[in-house]
Amino acid sequence: MKTLLGGIEAGGTKFVCAVGTGPDDIRALVRIPTTTPEVTIGQALAFFQEQTRQHGPLAGLGIASFGPVELHPDSPAYGFITSTPKPGWRNADLAGPFRRALDIPIGFDTDVNGAALGEKQWGAAQGLDTFIYLTVGTGIGGGALINGRLVHGLLHPEMGHFRPPRDAKADPFPGCCPFHGDCFEGLASGPALEKRWGQRAESLPPEHPAWALEAHYIAQALANYICILSPQRLILGGGVMAQGHLFPQVRAEVLRLLNGYIQAPALLEHLDSYIVPPGLGDRAGVLGALALALDAARPGRGG
Amino acid sequence: MKTLLGGIEAGGTKFVCAVGTGPDDIRALVRIPTTTPEVTIGQALAFFQEQTRQHGPLAGLGIASFGPVELHPDSPAYGFITSTPKPGWRNADLAGPFRRALDIPIGFDTDVNGAALGEKQWGAAQGLDTFIYLTVGTGIGGGALINGRLVHGLLHPEMGHFRPPRDAKADPFPGCCPFHGDCFEGLASGPALEKRWGQRAESLPPEHPAWALEAHYIAQALANYICILSPQRLILGGGVMAQGHLFPQVRAEVLRLLNGYIQAPALLEHLDSYIVPPGLGDRAGVLGALALALDAARPGRGG
Repeated sequence: MKTLLGGIEAGGTKFVCAVGTGPDDIRALVRIPTTTPEVTIGQALAFFQEQTRQHGPLAGLGIASFGPVELHPDSPAYGFITSTPKPGWRNADLAGPFRRALDIPIGFDTDVNGAALGEKQWGAAQGLDTFIYLTVGTGIGGGALINGRLVHGLLHPEMGHFRPPRDAKADPFPGCCPFHGDCFEGLASGPALEKRWGQRAESLPPEHPAWALEAHYIAQALANYICILSPQRLILGGGVMAQGHLFPQVRAEVLRLLNGYIQAPALLEHLDSYIVPPGLGDRAGVLGALALALDAARPGRGG
Repeated sequence: MKTLLGGIEAGGTKFVCAVGTGPDDIRALVRIPTTTPEVTIGQALAFFQEQTRQHGPLAGLGIASFGPVELHPDSPAYGFITSTPKPGWRNADLAGPFRRALDIPIGFDTDVNGAALGEKQWGAAQGLDTFIYLTVGTGIGGGALINGRLVHGLLHPEMGHFRPPRDAKADPFPGCCPFHGDCFEGLASGPALEKRWGQRAESLPPEHPAWALEAHYIAQALANYICILSPQRLILGGGVMAQGHLFPQVRAEVLRLLNGYIQAPALLEHLDSYIVPPGLGDRAGVLGALALALDAARPGRGG
C-alpha cells in the first residue's frame, strides 16, 4: 500500500488542498479562496481533519506557499509568510495551525521549490540532481534543486527580481515591480504584459510583437540562470507559459544570447529537451506540495 | 600528525604548486610559468615527485584550474581543460598525468570552486553552507557551495558571463568579451577597465569615475546572485578587488539595487560581514587547491 499524503498549494488567490499518493492517485481535492488566514487556514484544516477521519492519519503534509516565507527551522517565525503585500497575510503563521492540530510531519517551502521537488519525483526532472523550475504568471519565481537538494541559503531564491538589460527604445515600458521597476517580474509577468499592451496576455494573438519581446526577456533570464547555476534542465510553468508558441522562440533566443560559449550537448544539440514545460502540467503546484509531504515523511526527517 | 597535501593553482599565467597541511603550514611552494602542457605539467609533476621522496606519499592532490574544464567523472575527458582560447591548452589532459604518476586521490575542479572550498575550510566561509566566491581580475568567475556542496550541474557555473543592464549613455564602452561583448566580464574585468579608460586599472586613482562605474557593475552582479542563489555570504577576490575602496561602494550600491525587497538582517544590518574579501587573501587560490586535495583524501571518496 502506498503512503497517503496531504498537500496544500497555498496561493494568493486560492489554496488547493489534496490527499493522495501521487499524480495517478488523487483521492480528494478542494479549492478554497484565499481570504483571511483564520478563515482559509480553518477551512483547509477542516478538509484534512475530515480526510483523516476517513482514511486514518496521513503520513505527512506538504505546504507549498506564496511568499516570502521563513524557512529556517530554528527561527521563531518558521512556517510563516513574512513580508507579503497581500492584506492580512503579512507575518501569518501558515504551518503552525496544521502542525498543532494534525501531529504529523509537515514539509514547508516556497510554491516553486515545491513544484521543483514534484517535477523531480514524478515529472520532467526525474533522474536529475540540478535543475530549475520557473513559473511565469501573475508573478515570476523560481525554485531550484542543486546536487539533489532544494536551495534555501540566506532566505530562498527570488529569481524573478534580477534586472535584465532593457533597450528603452525597443521597450519604453518602465516595468511594474513596486520594488525594482524593470526587474524580470516587472517586465515579463502577466500583469506587466497587460499594462504594456493594454490588454490581457491571453488575448494577444501569437503573431503580436508582445511575444517576441516576452521570449527575449525569458531567454535573458534563462541564459542568466545557466551562467550562474549550470542547471541540467529548465522547466517553465505558469499562466504565461501556457502560450506554447513561446517555447521555440525562447529556445532560439537562449542559443543566440549564449553564443556558443557553454559547450554542452544539452544546449547545443538537445535544446528541446533542455527547456521544457512541466511534466505535471498545471498540477505541478499541488503535486509539488505532495512531494514536500513525501520528503517530510521520509524516515530520519523531522516534522 | 596532520595530513600532508599537495595543491596546484593552475592559472593561465602560472601554476602555483604547494605542499602543506593548511594556511599555517605550507612546507614548499613553487611558481611555474604556464607555457605548454608538456613542459608546465612536467615541471609540476617533478616538484610533487621530489616532495614525495622527501616526505613520503601525499594524502591527496588538488588541482584548481582555469577553464572551462570537464568535471563529470564518467566523461572520457574528465580532468581536461576543454574549450579555452589559450594556445596549446585546448583539450589538454591536466589531471591525467598526475593521476597516472602519483597514485594518490586527485581532486579536480575550477579555480573558483577550489577557492570557495578553501574559504569554507580555513577562511571567510567557515560554518556556512551556501555562499559564493567571486574573482574579479583578468577574468571574472564564481564558485559556489550550496547546502555544503560545490555546484557543477550541467558543466560548472560561468558567473562572469551573464549580461547586466548597461546604460550606453553613461557607459558607451561596448564591452570586450569575445563571446558576449557587454557581459559582466566584458564590462568589469581588469582588461575591460584598461580598454575603457586607456590605462591599467591599478593606475587609476580612487577618485576616478572608473571606480563608481565598476562598483555599479559588481553590485549588479551581486544583486543578481542574491536573487538567484540566496547566498549566506559573498566573498570577493581577484586583482581588481585588491582596490579595497571598492568594497564600501559595492555594498552601498547592492542595498540601493535590492531596495529593501530581501528582508534579511545579513543584508539590512550586517552588510560589512556579508560582502567581504577572502579570509585567505591572495593565497585563496593555492589554498583552495589544498582544500580540494583534503576533500579528495576523505575516507569514502574515490581518487
